[in-house]
Amino acid sequence: MKLNKLIPLSATAALLPLASFAQDAEAVVAVAVPTDSVFILNSLLFLIGGFLVFWMAAGFSMLEAGLVRSKNVTMQLTKNMALFGLACIFYYLIGYNLMYPLGNWSVDGVLSGVFGPAVLEVVGVTAEGADDYSYASTGSDFFFQLMFCAATASIVSGTLAERIKLWPFLAFTIVLTAIIYPIQASWKWGGGFLDAAGFLDFAGSTVVHSVGGWAALTGALVLGPRLGKYKDGRVIPMMGSNLTLATLGTFILWMGWFGFNGASQLAMGSVGDVADISRIFANTNAAAAGGLITALLLTQALYKKPDLTMILNGALAGLVSITAEPLTPTIGESTLIGAIGGLIVVFAVPMLDKLKIDDVVGAIPVHLMAGIWGTIAVVFTNGDASLGTQLYSIVVVGGFTVVTSGALWLLLKHTVGIRVSAEAEITGLDVAELGMEAYPEFSKG
Amino acid sequence: MKLNKLIPLSATAALLPLASFAQDAEAVVAVAVPTDSVFILNSLLFLIGGFLVFWMAAGFSMLEAGLVRSKNVTMQLTKNMALFGLACIFYYLIGYNLMYPLGNWSVDGVLSGVFGPAVLEVVGVTAEGADDYSYASTGSDFFFQLMFCAATASIVSGTLAERIKLWPFLAFTIVLTAIIYPIQASWKWGGGFLDAAGFLDFAGSTVVHSVGGWAALTGALVLGPRLGKYKDGRVIPMMGSNLTLATLGTFILWMGWFGFNGASQLAMGSVGDVADISRIFANTNAAAAGGLITALLLTQALYKKPDLTMILNGALAGLVSITAEPLTPTIGESTLIGAIGGLIVVFAVPMLDKLKIDDVVGAIPVHLMAGIWGTIAVVFTNGDASLGTQLYSIVVVGGFTVVTSGALWLLLKHTVGIRVSAEAEITGLDVAELGMEAYPEFSKG
Amino acid sequence: MKLNKLIPLSATAALLPLASFAQDAEAVVAVAVPTDSVFILNSLLFLIGGFLVFWMAAGFSMLEAGLVRSKNVTMQLTKNMALFGLACIFYYLIGYNLMYPLGNWSVDGVLSGVFGPAVLEVVGVTAEGADDYSYASTGSDFFFQLMFCAATASIVSGTLAERIKLWPFLAFTIVLTAIIYPIQASWKWGGGFLDAAGFLDFAGSTVVHSVGGWAALTGALVLGPRLGKYKDGRVIPMMGSNLTLATLGTFILWMGWFGFNGASQLAMGSVGDVADISRIFANTNAAAAGGLITALLLTQALYKKPDLTMILNGALAGLVSITAEPLTPTIGESTLIGAIGGLIVVFAVPMLDKLKIDDVVGAIPVHLMAGIWGTIAVVFTNGDASLGTQLYSIVVVGGFTVVTSGALWLLLKHTVGIRVSAEAEITGLDVAELGMEAYPEFSKG
Repeated sequence: MKLNKLIPLSATAALLPLASFAQDAEAVVAVAVPTDSVFILNSLLFLIGGFLVFWMAAGFSMLEAGLVRSKNVTMQLTKNMALFGLACIFYYLIGYNLMYPLGNWSVDGVLSGVFGPAVLEVVGVTAEGADDYSYASTGSDFFFQLMFCAATASIVSGTLAERIKLWPFLAFTIVLTAIIYPIQASWKWGGGFLDAAGFLDFAGSTVVHSVGGWAALTGALVLGPRLGKYKDGRVIPMMGSNLTLATLGTFILWMGWFGFNGASQLAMGSVGDVADISRIFANTNAAAAGGLITALLLTQALYKKPDLTMILNGALAGLVSITAEPLTPTIGESTLIGAIGGLIVVFAVPMLDKLKIDDVVGAIPVHLMAGIWGTIAVVFTNGDASLGTQLYSIVVVGGFTVVTSGALWLLLKHTVGIRVSAEAEITGLDVAELGMEAYPEFSKG
Repeated sequence: MKLNKLIPLSATAALLPLASFAQDAEAVVAVAVPTDSVFILNSLLFLIGGFLVFWMAAGFSMLEAGLVRSKNVTMQLTKNMALFGLACIFYYLIGYNLMYPLGNWSVDGVLSGVFGPAVLEVVGVTAEGADDYSYASTGSDFFFQLMFCAATASIVSGTLAERIKLWPFLAFTIVLTAIIYPIQASWKWGGGFLDAAGFLDFAGSTVVHSVGGWAALTGALVLGPRLGKYKDGRVIPMMGSNLTLATLGTFILWMGWFGFNGASQLAMGSVGDVADISRIFANTNAAAAGGLITALLLTQALYKKPDLTMILNGALAGLVSITAEPLTPTIGESTLIGAIGGLIVVFAVPMLDKLKIDDVVGAIPVHLMAGIWGTIAVVFTNGDASLGTQLYSIVVVGGFTVVTSGALWLLLKHTVGIRVSAEAEITGLDVAELGMEAYPEFSKG
Repeated sequence: MKLNKLIPLSATAALLPLASFAQDAEAVVAVAVPTDSVFILNSLLFLIGGFLVFWMAAGFSMLEAGLVRSKNVTMQLTKNMALFGLACIFYYLIGYNLMYPLGNWSVDGVLSGVFGPAVLEVVGVTAEGADDYSYASTGSDFFFQLMFCAATASIVSGTLAERIKLWPFLAFTIVLTAIIYPIQASWKWGGGFLDAAGFLDFAGSTVVHSVGGWAALTGALVLGPRLGKYKDGRVIPMMGSNLTLATLGTFILWMGWFGFNGASQLAMGSVGDVADISRIFANTNAAAAGGLITALLLTQALYKKPDLTMILNGALAGLVSITAEPLTPTIGESTLIGAIGGLIVVFAVPMLDKLKIDDVVGAIPVHLMAGIWGTIAVVFTNGDASLGTQLYSIVVVGGFTVVTSGALWLLLKHTVGIRVSAEAEITGLDVAELGMEAYPEFSKG
């Protein structure tokens, strides 16, 4: 997202034609779109983008349900449903206003305090009620931003699958969505010091994806690998139970990413904005294609057999890679940026296994490593980006997330415990913890 | 839906600026959006809302296919496909014009008779051809309204799964979509006596969800429970065969609900309308979250184990609960309204079992009971609502639906029969009735 | 798509009001929508349509994964992912500009050469930078057109499932998306000789669906049937492994079709355009309903049992049938046009088996035969259509596709080979070729 809400330049720009519109009826040709239309189109962009990013919650659920073993599927679905619900409640109660601490642009003139819940416009607000900072409805912005926060939490659940306890995981989710995500997001998108320093992260390779990835990584380190995953120096494959679901989840995420990146343009009320959104759609798609084809070719080259799970993660890594800058590259450059994301996945997945970091669905390579890559890649196509600032921001956000989430994971570990019993892990969380199987009638091979 | 089509106040309001636009070019700042833009944006809202509500047909199918046993999955999919196709045909042939009996606002000036098929605008209709009642295209309205009618029919199929015959069920669907739904919907949305009485039901907690729920309940009473479900005073659990599908279906329904409630604003051509739609999106989402988290906490408290199927139904009950008034509550109030919906589900599901009413997917708690709750809850946040009128309308619509659908179920039962043979039920409908299994290769445990 | 980009009449028409807007402020009532709004709304139509057609890639994947046997599911998913990625890359590199050979309407003034990659507008293009040919962003058009090209390739993969080698199939995909599809598409949509001859194919019953179908048919003939499919004069049924996935895929495709047909209106900036899009949505939906109900009734009549796979393909055939002309029919006519599509499927599937043409998912009846029917059906509702020209165009496009794809299939067959070994086919492609099962834990019955 390029817009700093505290200094809504784009909104101001959108308002400029209004003046000329009023002052000179003859000059109306030069006017783009009436101001109210700008407000409507911007809000519509957030709403469409928002339901597409909402849809990513289903994508994460299907991807993760497909990549865990069938004995843990019900638990993985329960976690995904519950984390989304908690993100909705705690981002509303705390996160949204924490993320935009100096006041939001609500048109009823009531500025929320730092720790108050989100307040939307009054029903049927009039154009006259909209002050100068209004360029889209607060409700549409809240809806859109909430979905980003929830996506961050969804990233964590996949890595820690098959062995983490439900309630401590949900406790972590609450802190992540209420505090950790909003604070660091405010440094960039709330007009904080990273934004002031010139950090560029269009739709969140760092702010969303790497944060989810860092939280997943620290969780994996504190939690430890699944029983039997690393044995006698060997890595024991634990195959996902349902690759059609994993593929469906990938397609859902890909679709949702058009909203994720496209609506991060934050404005649709001018020719330039809609043309930019169009570039973003084309580039986002190209990066996914680049990532998936790279993973296809590399796994064929390395293992003599294409690996579907790598292909799926390659597409996702391509998407994460383009997220920090989906606008300035050409389609070809986007394809290459995504391709490097796919390459990262193919090499990082076995590397993590060598380090005995057990990431069940590959979220660390996809969201953290490709997120870092994407954040760096901004400098290749956006002349305003500084490599130093990008690296500095990656380190700052990463450091903050590792410290806070690491402390939280350790706290949870040494108080309530975060790991299920060995017996429950072997039996499977569905029967042991929930008493309910996802596929009760299909006998296991 | 707040708009009575016979008195399209919002459309008239939308046209007002036009006059000032024409009369005083200098006053153009006060003008929201050119009239044609209003028409376009309103129609676009219906089209986006329409494809999202269409998508709910897939959600119902996946939810139901996931919650029945695998031996009945093909039949459940067949019913869902067929009922949707029939709804499309019979709402077109009869329902649409029956629902808006005093004439629709087609721009070609041809008013359909009460029992004629829907007629759309001519191809390439001009703005000049649009009369004063036109504020969106008839085609977009028809498309949107059709999806509501089909959703009503989808609600019924889940409750009656695993034992009802295909063809009598489809016969019921035809009458429901051609006659029962449109007649009662016309009382509110067609400008009938409930609308005149001040009944408020924004997107159909009563008009859609309770009607589907009442039809399902009467069907369940006439049809009886599945063999072996209630035995020696005990309730025998019959677990759903595929909880990933059920979860996917819930996410699909949740996504579709943004269209269901959001586009029921019926207008997007002003700042106030799009800000209202944004509120509705945020509130709809919050209610789902409230319902699911409540079901999560309650099942943990009551049974010591979270229950995924309750969580899914809790989210859906939250959505139904907010449907009668998704606009006026705050996000916090919406969360609470949804939470009570979730609570209803957790207590109503075992209560129905005590009454030996066998509702395979929980549609009666979700759509009927939460629908009634949502209709009542309007009075807490909308000052225009009267509790008496809300209760009166719930009773009137419920009474009409119970009598008509009950009579129809009894007629079908005593003529062609509505229940498959005991042998077919035990074997499973897929093999017995269709000769085709949904998962022919997966052996049953 | 009705618009020839080389003579963008609709765009010109959209610009006309601009003049009066500038020249006479008092006449502003007659003006539809400011020009920039037209540009924005047209681009938005392409973006919404584009992500819906993107979604069809998931639909094809799920449909095909559900209709193959479980031993070949991972391979089918891999093919679908890979073909989509390749379509993205090669349509970008070659196809897009090849399809619009006389120059595209990019606003930066750079006309691409015939064999150059697609070039989008500069970032933040201004309205002034848009020349007279600009009526939507190039990025949105590219995104939308790309999805059509990818859909064509998706059609092929289903027919040839369970026996074709991965890499030769992907080689075919590259040529299809880079060369074959764009060349023939340019004859109609690039302003070529079929367009000049008066050929009408609104969204591609011939240009997209029949081309995919012809390529699938020639592939099936060159490849031969699956082992054991036709034995001793009998047809051995090979049931799909997962009918819920097949149903989900059908719903996804149906949903995507609203974008496929609706956005092929190519413009949303006037009352007439949005009303036309609304007609298209309603008609597209009606045709699907007609096809599915026909298949339901016919399979009941012929086989005494409804056949879900026929019902699904009936819906899809209805959709293909209406694609050549979704605008001019009434809803009733659309239902009938779709119904004949459903009828074609029910009779063509066994007919192909009699000819020992093994089409695993029924893509030839659905996309080729219903595509031809839909192209012919244009003459019944569109007065501008000539039966002779429609037939001539079907033959020309079919002849070109059969010759080019047939030559390519034969070339591949006689060089690298296109068929897996008998052993691999019997074992299943997943284990034999990929070493990865889609459902590794579910034992086979």
